[in-house]
Amino acid sequence: MVDTLRINSGRLWGRIDELAQVGAIIGTDGCSRLALTDEDKEGRNLVFTWMEDLGMEIVIDGIGNVIGTWAGNGTDKTLPPVMTGSHIDTVRTGGRFDGNLGVLAGLEVVETLAENNISPFHPIAVGFFTGEEGARFAPDMLGSLVYVGGMSLESALDIEGIDGKRLGDELERIGYRGAAPCPGPVPKAFVELHIEQGPVLEANKTSIGAVDSVQGISWAEITIEGQSNHAGTTPMHMRHDAGFAAAQIAAFVRQLALEVGGDQVGTVGKIDLHPNLVNVVASKAVMTVDLRNTDEELLKNSESRLNEFCLSLSESEHVEITSKPLARFEPVSFAQELIDGVIKVSKSLGLSVQQMTSGAGHDAQMFARICPTSMIFVPSKDGLSHNPAEYTSQEQIMDGANVLLQLLLQLAKEQSG
Amino acid sequence: MVDTLRINSGRLWGRIDELAQVGAIIGTDGCSRLALTDEDKEGRNLVFTWMEDLGMEIVIDGIGNVIGTWAGNGTDKTLPPVMTGSHIDTVRTGGRFDGNLGVLAGLEVVETLAENNISPFHPIAVGFFTGEEGARFAPDMLGSLVYVGGMSLESALDIEGIDGKRLGDELERIGYRGAAPCPGPVPKAFVELHIEQGPVLEANKTSIGAVDSVQGISWAEITIEGQSNHAGTTPMHMRHDAGFAAAQIAAFVRQLALEVGGDQVGTVGKIDLHPNLVNVVASKAVMTVDLRNTDEELLKNSESRLNEFCLSLSESEHVEITSKPLARFEPVSFAQELIDGVIKVSKSLGLSVQQMTSGAGHDAQMFARICPTSMIFVPSKDGLSHNPAEYTSQEQIMDGANVLLQLLLQLAKEQSG
Repeated sequence: MVDTLRINSGRLWGRIDELAQVGAIIGTDGCSRLALTDEDKEGRNLVFTWMEDLGMEIVIDGIGNVIGTWAGNGTDKTLPPVMTGSHIDTVRTGGRFDGNLGVLAGLEVVETLAENNISPFHPIAVGFFTGEEGARFAPDMLGSLVYVGGMSLESALDIEGIDGKRLGDELERIGYRGAAPCPGPVPKAFVELHIEQGPVLEANKTSIGAVDSVQGISWAEITIEGQSNHAGTTPMHMRHDAGFAAAQIAAFVRQLALEVGGDQVGTVGKIDLHPNLVNVVASKAVMTVDLRNTDEELLKNSESRLNEFCLSLSESEHVEITSKPLARFEPVSFAQELIDGVIKVSKSLGLSVQQMTSGAGHDAQMFARICPTSMIFVPSKDGLSHNPAEYTSQEQIMDGANVLLQLLLQLAKEQSG
Repeated sequence: MVDTLRINSGRLWGRIDELAQVGAIIGTDGCSRLALTDEDKEGRNLVFTWMEDLGMEIVIDGIGNVIGTWAGNGTDKTLPPVMTGSHIDTVRTGGRFDGNLGVLAGLEVVETLAENNISPFHPIAVGFFTGEEGARFAPDMLGSLVYVGGMSLESALDIEGIDGKRLGDELERIGYRGAAPCPGPVPKAFVELHIEQGPVLEANKTSIGAVDSVQGISWAEITIEGQSNHAGTTPMHMRHDAGFAAAQIAAFVRQLALEVGGDQVGTVGKIDLHPNLVNVVASKAVMTVDLRNTDEELLKNSESRLNEFCLSLSESEHVEITSKPLARFEPVSFAQELIDGVIKVSKSLGLSVQQMTSGAGHDAQMFARICPTSMIFVPSKDGLSHNPAEYTSQEQIMDGANVLLQLLLQLAKEQSG
């Protein structure tokens, strides 16, 4: 009976649609619910009500994370819960799936269990975590970071938003400053269902991604100081061209990523030249380099190769090159037994599945610090995300939620180790 | 006697300084006299007065060019004059030498001849031409262009400035809409003394540049349309990165200039990425390419090699690349006998001299269409120009003005051919 249990995809799709009406961006399918704004409050209230309707025991902690825990008749409430969840805040022009899917699929799993009178041994907890996007209050993944003890509650409450507002004040204002302590209780395991936000599953026509890791991230801002010169009167050999040096670095980053291979990616997404005129050799360039790898040693190696290249370029072009780190996160590896679990469950459901890394950050990577964790990815149309046009079909979502259902059931049925 | 004649460098330096007080930029040595503004009017009035004081016959034409002609007792006034001159308008934050030097050195030559009672056969004309900089009314070199018949007076008067004012109205307003016809009378020859505005003479420790040509200019705006993607979740082989393509083009432009060699220069001074964010693969890049060469065939060849490169890049990166011409001028060659004249005179004065091209545009290139023409360059400190810090020493200016004096004398002494 349990193996053939399936979620109700129409009900899940309906909740996604209903939540997306809160902060909806007119004329699109997307929404705008920056953390701790009135829109976020309204979205929270809606999901809170759904949790209540499902008879979940709801706890709000000091940073505003909301955890609803569900137990059937035969559940041992003294055991740590198997937890799932994600976030419901969005970027300013966000889609309706990013984060929301993971929370609402969790509720759908609970409702499916409840209506089928299935009682796992362990309780099932569904959480939505404060400020995952970092679009109003940095850093991102803030709520889950505080949950796992990676930042003190006091520091977090004092964070100033892009609008100058204090996080703690905004949390009070919307009524989500809870009493539960941070860090929070350690779950038995944590599994997060999320859209891929990339093009890989779609390109491979694969239904499910069994996420084995989150890439480490290295962001640097590189500043090149050359010499402003007339584009007509300055012979090539007398130039100290900051724009040319920036172009060389951008070309090198591509070459580096290809040479390192594997998961290594490298991006120059931002270049600002000064004075940025057609007939003036640029005196200055400010650019960013984004390097990511799932292997910390390889990432470090890429960083040092980039630095060596900049050093040699500064000598050959006679420009000054300085580099400032903007962000640095080590890679995160998920638990092998949970990765295997995602693969096994997917196959048993007849779904194509591939092991893959996550190029974006997620709440799950914080939980990986305290309990066995993994993630389930479903395809993103054209790899789009953080965009109102973000799209995953109802069927793809059904597949992902069914994998979540079966995996949570297996984890919750087992005796705690 | 004539061969040992020298200009009075203190007097010339003094006039440069006095003219630089008009529209002076406080706290710098530079000045701001955009064409046909009140500051330009005041500068014109000052130079006009100096021409009157020297007993020159002054003519103002329909576009506001002012030509003062001087004849000694033995001069045949029916012969075409040997002409020199330049402009006294500046860019918004200009130096005191660009243009002004050529006009005031012309007056200094006249004063030197007058006080020494020297009468060349041909009259000597000194002109300052309207709106050479193009900083208020485009195109640049407008006054000389109209003088030589390259644009009709009617079209020129109708040009709208960056402030929305009509050129003809502004010319009337400042009282410099003259009666003399355009095109103007053809001189026997035209020689312009100008600062180099580049670093070559200073680097080579050479006093005089004998300018043999003005580079042809090809400006293009290149637009690259790629695809916006997440910098973490998009594998390298699935990218269509407009920023990377822009970097490749900038690197190619350098390589092209080095391979073509000679006078070829190439510059990418302007790159704008969209959305220009650290963690987003750029969907769009708009950049400029500035190519210059003194040889039209080589310039055309560089243009087509750039186009071929863009075509192959658009295929390999799967991006769309379009190119829009922003400006295109053919190279100008000066008269060999006048280039030889500059070299010979410089050597006779014991000055180091080198033949060179001009990377910037000048009034002289317009006169090259109607009469034998060349230019004399003097060094620019650090190659700086269009900048209040523009500087050429009094001695360097003296050397250039003495070459101008001797060359004008030789040209004016000869019988008209």
